[in-house]
Amino acid sequence: MTSAPDATPPAEPARRRRRDPEAHRAAILDAAREAFAEHGYALATIRDIARRAGVTHGLVMRHFTSKEQLFLCAVPGTRDLDEIVAGDVASLPERVAAGFVARMETNAADDPFVTLIRSAASNERAAIDLYTAMRRRSVAAYRTVLDGDDVDVRVELMAAQLIGVAFNRYIVKAGPLAAMTAGELTAHLSRVLRGIMFG
Amino acid sequence: MTSAPDATPPAEPARRRRRDPEAHRAAILDAAREAFAEHGYALATIRDIARRAGVTHGLVMRHFTSKEQLFLCAVPGTRDLDEIVAGDVASLPERVAAGFVARMETNAADDPFVTLIRSAASNERAAIDLYTAMRRRSVAAYRTVLDGDDVDVRVELMAAQLIGVAFNRYIVKAGPLAAMTAGELTAHLSRVLRGIMFG
Repeated sequence: MTSAPDATPPAEPARRRRRDPEAHRAAILDAAREAFAEHGYALATIRDIARRAGVTHGLVMRHFTSKEQLFLCAVPGTRDLDEIVAGDVASLPERVAAGFVARMETNAADDPFVTLIRSAASNERAAIDLYTAMRRRSVAAYRTVLDGDDVDVRVELMAAQLIGVAFNRYIVKAGPLAAMTAGELTAHLSRVLRGIMFG
Repeated sequence: MTSAPDATPPAEPARRRRRDPEAHRAAILDAAREAFAEHGYALATIRDIARRAGVTHGLVMRHFTSKEQLFLCAVPGTRDLDEIVAGDVASLPERVAAGFVARMETNAADDPFVTLIRSAASNERAAIDLYTAMRRRSVAAYRTVLDGDDVDVRVELMAAQLIGVAFNRYIVKAGPLAAMTAGELTAHLSRVLRGIMFG
């Protein structure tokens, strides 16, 4: 006999029912920040993030299209570049330098540059996808204010400078760039970025 | 009874007897390159390198003082900087850029910059010690030709640029800096390094 006289229907899994797309989006971003902080970028999964947010894998993908896009929307950095580039192009190097330093001084651990460097050592594929997503967004933002065929090259040379400084000051944390004040670093970076941007 | 009637004296461990300090030094450098390639920088040990070279741990330390100094002597990069800086200071940015690109195109995998980036993710202490040793040597080399109180800062901003480009072109291997020819990269880097060095 295979009857199960006291079987009860399985409990409906608890689901947070948010019908509002904006509320869904906010819940996914919260869950993503949690998962990236807990597991690191390379090991965090869309499936886990969806579960934490109480939504489906498909809904996360519909909102954000990929893990790297979700990451870039969840943390400060690339997502704020549109605001930074808007304004007088003559003072763009100073705004980029100040934005980078302010962000790193507040929370370097979750920054896209630091995440990128750390993920390159553990998971090259994750690093390539993240780097490519960052580069595309940055080039699109800078193209709204900079002219010329080589904007993509100049953006990448600026990114190289910022990656190198992130490596030095916020990962290795040793040497004169790590020891100087945020204001001094901003001044040095403004000068270097100006040379790359317009030089 | 604990007697061991057929015990023979333990065999003398095979030792390569090199009395010449230069031959010792060469054997240690060969052993170091082997060990760093096999285990990676962070996991390679002076003890293993001494064993491979058939010398004592103490002799390795007398010749090279530390693992990071041994590494910098064993691989191209910082060790070649004295030659690169010697010459007309007006064309120093071009020589530094050309030296960096030529070296990376030949063998990026064992390069100090790539080793530094990879070791930062797995072993922060190893990265700090290696970075500090690289910085000291580089600053000493550049100080022979550059003046000013901020030579150390300018050297570190140049290093940041090269670390960022190494990350992009030789680790992530994606984007316009990775796609361009060695000659194009040298030209771009010359311009950026010139701005940092003299700007």
